[in-house]
Amino acid sequence: MSDFQVHILGCGSALPTAVHYPTSQVVELRDKLFMIDCGEGAQRQFRLQHLDFGRLVAIFISHLHGDHCFGLPGLLSSLGLLGRRRAMPIYGPRGLDTFLLPFIEQNRQYLGYEIEIHILDDSIPQLAYEDRSVSVTTLPLKHGVPCVGYLIREKVTERHIDRASCDFYEVPRTFYPFLREGRDFVTSEGEVIPNDRLTRLGRSARSYAYCSDTAYAPHLIPLVQSVDLLYHEATFLNTLRARAKETNHSTAEEAALIACKANVGQLLIGHYSARYNDSRPLLREAQAIFPKTLAADEGMVVTL
Amino acid sequence: MSDFQVHILGCGSALPTAVHYPTSQVVELRDKLFMIDCGEGAQRQFRLQHLDFGRLVAIFISHLHGDHCFGLPGLLSSLGLLGRRRAMPIYGPRGLDTFLLPFIEQNRQYLGYEIEIHILDDSIPQLAYEDRSVSVTTLPLKHGVPCVGYLIREKVTERHIDRASCDFYEVPRTFYPFLREGRDFVTSEGEVIPNDRLTRLGRSARSYAYCSDTAYAPHLIPLVQSVDLLYHEATFLNTLRARAKETNHSTAEEAALIACKANVGQLLIGHYSARYNDSRPLLREAQAIFPKTLAADEGMVVTL
Repeated sequence: MSDFQVHILGCGSALPTAVHYPTSQVVELRDKLFMIDCGEGAQRQFRLQHLDFGRLVAIFISHLHGDHCFGLPGLLSSLGLLGRRRAMPIYGPRGLDTFLLPFIEQNRQYLGYEIEIHILDDSIPQLAYEDRSVSVTTLPLKHGVPCVGYLIREKVTERHIDRASCDFYEVPRTFYPFLREGRDFVTSEGEVIPNDRLTRLGRSARSYAYCSDTAYAPHLIPLVQSVDLLYHEATFLNTLRARAKETNHSTAEEAALIACKANVGQLLIGHYSARYNDSRPLLREAQAIFPKTLAADEGMVVTL
Repeated sequence: MSDFQVHILGCGSALPTAVHYPTSQVVELRDKLFMIDCGEGAQRQFRLQHLDFGRLVAIFISHLHGDHCFGLPGLLSSLGLLGRRRAMPIYGPRGLDTFLLPFIEQNRQYLGYEIEIHILDDSIPQLAYEDRSVSVTTLPLKHGVPCVGYLIREKVTERHIDRASCDFYEVPRTFYPFLREGRDFVTSEGEVIPNDRLTRLGRSARSYAYCSDTAYAPHLIPLVQSVDLLYHEATFLNTLRARAKETNHSTAEEAALIACKANVGQLLIGHYSARYNDSRPLLREAQAIFPKTLAADEGMVVTL
């Protein structure tokens, strides 16, 4: 089974600490890397985690607060120095263009590749990106500024060949690719062998939802229903619930409530306030409601 | 004696590595901190090195290549979050305004303090900054884009009171401040006691010169003559001298030649190309010409 992994490059919040980098993640799926958010230092963590810059396919930005985008100029410059020639699509809500255009204008001579800016509607879920193996849909978040989460869903995989059955019906190897696409087989006697007698279903498609930054937002529950992994910000402990509401952030308990009501496979919390040197109290608070919770940390890799 | 120290926050070059951060330094002098260049991650190193953001008085940028300035947005945002209200003066050559103005425009509501942009002439040495204890003068560098180094010179310190002599001439304590400023003393009998009989010279003013990025530039020799410490970039080994010339950088040997001809107290090399995992060959090359050479490293503190 090909990898579907989430690499944590940074899980701190607005004020970087000695412990945490600001937010950035890399989603790895079938040899492609997708970056979600790019806080300052993301390129360093990318390198420390031995990820391959050449495999970076697209970048998704949740919103334009600095702890989610100030790493872009450095990363994009380094990609140019490393010889990238392929265009880089960058997705994000309104404001992404205002942020990126001066950088592009001032550094065009050093870049050597195109940067494609894709502005996303932050009010309704929308297909942002699609290729042969994956789709990325936006999740409208509640953060006081245009802000979107992302739902990354693997496409349903091809059907698996049932070798014994194929041998029995004398299906030539050259026909296997057509079987995988779902076609029936016709024997030399003209008998139609239905596809489902010759193949088995591929495994179900895996999915990952990224929700940061956001206040507690129950409208997300149906949108992230049953995803395998939900990353939900947990900036504060519940003792600072009023502060969370005021700053459009969530508490660990609120993150767990979303996970619980959406019946997700696993919850990953992060975006910790700089006041917490230790994420364990946040983890315990979430686990009290949703036991299958993990606390993000730099260098962590979660496999779906 | 009050501290005059140079803290190395980053000494890598354009392409950050797992070993080095891009360029940034903090000069500490009499409780004031001055930052020179601010590559990505400078605020993290600032914090890791337990420097106090509240003591940061001014920032000096050598040029607008990303490895010398991409840490500014993050640092300036964090200063706002940490409650800074005092204006921050930032000095640098042409282009500093183009780089900073879009950031200021987009983040004005989060900053909470003024950013004063001071554009410096990059063609002639010029007084950039001055206060009671220090002056900062520009050093025109040779880098293909507007680029200035900085000469930080402590002001000559006040004269020291010779207590025995003062007691002999019955100089009242209240007159000591005038003695420190150089005034003569007149006794009650009208006798003029020359200042130099009542005081000793303060220690000589210390000086630090920062020259990065630059090709080999002999015009610097008289400008940095006899400084206590010279930081000079040494991007390449002499085996890549042609590459250094082509990219307007220096070799370790060239850095040492400048140090030698300018008869400086000590040479500090840095801005290593990402191709060198180990700075020791660069250090050896420089020491062969100028033995009193140090190789910069993150976290290093050099006391003048």
